[in-house]
Amino acid sequence: MKNIYIIGVGLIGGSFALEIKTKYQNTRIFGIDTNQDHIKEAISLKVIDESATYGDLPQADLVILSIPVDAAVKELPKILNAIADTTLVIDVGSTKKPICEAVELHPKRRNFLATHPIAGTEFSGPKAAIRDLYRHKTNIICEVEKTAFKLQEKALRLFSELGMRIRYMNPDAHDKHIAYVSHLSHISSFMLGKTVIEKEKNERDIFDMAGSGFASTVRLAKSSPDMWTPIFKQNKTNVIETLEEYIINLTHFKDMMQSDDFESIYNEMKNTNHIKDILEGIA
Amino acid sequence: MKNIYIIGVGLIGGSFALEIKTKYQNTRIFGIDTNQDHIKEAISLKVIDESATYGDLPQADLVILSIPVDAAVKELPKILNAIADTTLVIDVGSTKKPICEAVELHPKRRNFLATHPIAGTEFSGPKAAIRDLYRHKTNIICEVEKTAFKLQEKALRLFSELGMRIRYMNPDAHDKHIAYVSHLSHISSFMLGKTVIEKEKNERDIFDMAGSGFASTVRLAKSSPDMWTPIFKQNKTNVIETLEEYIINLTHFKDMMQSDDFESIYNEMKNTNHIKDILEGIA
Repeated sequence: MKNIYIIGVGLIGGSFALEIKTKYQNTRIFGIDTNQDHIKEAISLKVIDESATYGDLPQADLVILSIPVDAAVKELPKILNAIADTTLVIDVGSTKKPICEAVELHPKRRNFLATHPIAGTEFSGPKAAIRDLYRHKTNIICEVEKTAFKLQEKALRLFSELGMRIRYMNPDAHDKHIAYVSHLSHISSFMLGKTVIEKEKNERDIFDMAGSGFASTVRLAKSSPDMWTPIFKQNKTNVIETLEEYIINLTHFKDMMQSDDFESIYNEMKNTNHIKDILEGIA
Repeated sequence: MKNIYIIGVGLIGGSFALEIKTKYQNTRIFGIDTNQDHIKEAISLKVIDESATYGDLPQADLVILSIPVDAAVKELPKILNAIADTTLVIDVGSTKKPICEAVELHPKRRNFLATHPIAGTEFSGPKAAIRDLYRHKTNIICEVEKTAFKLQEKALRLFSELGMRIRYMNPDAHDKHIAYVSHLSHISSFMLGKTVIEKEKNERDIFDMAGSGFASTVRLAKSSPDMWTPIFKQNKTNVIETLEEYIINLTHFKDMMQSDDFESIYNEMKNTNHIKDILEGIA
């Protein structure tokens, strides 16, 4: 791989760029971004080598599409229109059904691989790009059979170089389950942050009382609304389902407290403690 | 300080023991615990030097009471009955009003200092005890004026040696605010864990999809039900209030999603992003 194009030079795309440069000799990393400040920043941070446009895409060996999922759905067909027959295009968005549907009938569908690397931080932009973000992380690949065999191989080699493990899943199942293990966490964190800020806005000193437990549960409330609003929009049905179940569980907890049923509260917590085993191995 | 008695040799008491041993020469650390396995474990881990009973308390220079808050309220009067006039007794529980009320009229009230070190991890028991747990952490002291001046000094010297910063607060205010910045986080985390486990119980592989964001938001769901059930019980009114507000905010978020009002969702998240500034300085 010689010419790599990163479309969207933020945390996810930028971290790919940094890793690819370390692992592959003689590559040149091009950045495409609607935000020219991000391009300048990415160049000065040596995340990318230079700026490019869609007109340059016929030269691309690999295109990584790492922009908010609403924009990705619109841009991917244009990108597929612009590339050469041998170019591999990968997206990395947190929803998979809409993007797979958007290019289902595209003549270059076989140049595209739908992926979701389960990696990230609560930060964003080129300065958030870090090395080693993907090592030991899971990458979920959807509809692998719709990608040309040679391009599948190319992608798997890249993911292997980066230290990722692969799971295959259909887009429907991906979007349903990711709502539980990722999207719901973000909403619970944002609303926890909101609840505390609203209550404590006139008593800023109170945050002196907050410890690492609070910090851990509201960490995701630092996440980018530009990235997350389109994710919630695209995965609306699944996310609403998770929210309904979460609200039911919280309301049940409150009801148990109101009726002084602390034995049941104890059992609820005890039963949930085995999340310990489930979390083992997650960074 | 020569003879230190730790009542409840778990994460909190054990971590005090480890630090005190490092900072004070010639101290002897005694452990009192209803769980004899914890005593044995604490001795073998060198968290404490030896086992003791309430009968030994007249020899104590310092007693640290670090047991679940329901037991603390019952045991504190007995401990105050047993100590000498010069003994300092500190509790470290996550609720402050019930314990202050329990000894309000006790003849040895001036030997007691009510504190809440904002420090901990999601683990428990003697093996969870760690060095440096308290460095740079906040310790909230309630009703300081009710403690004998010399014993206040002794306590402040200890906290200073351990690197803690002190905040003074009345028990009512403590219990109200800590419900927001600590107790609610634990419930949100437990119920998030429950929601995901319930949904995914037949598809264990799905947890492969969980990343560090999920791990962060459900970390507190590993916490000990023995410790947390009595906290929720003692702080029932305040905790129910926080839960009601949290549920209202989550329901509002769901309603906005259902009515496709993603502009408002964007603004909600944007407004909550400034939790970044608030969290600065929290470990």
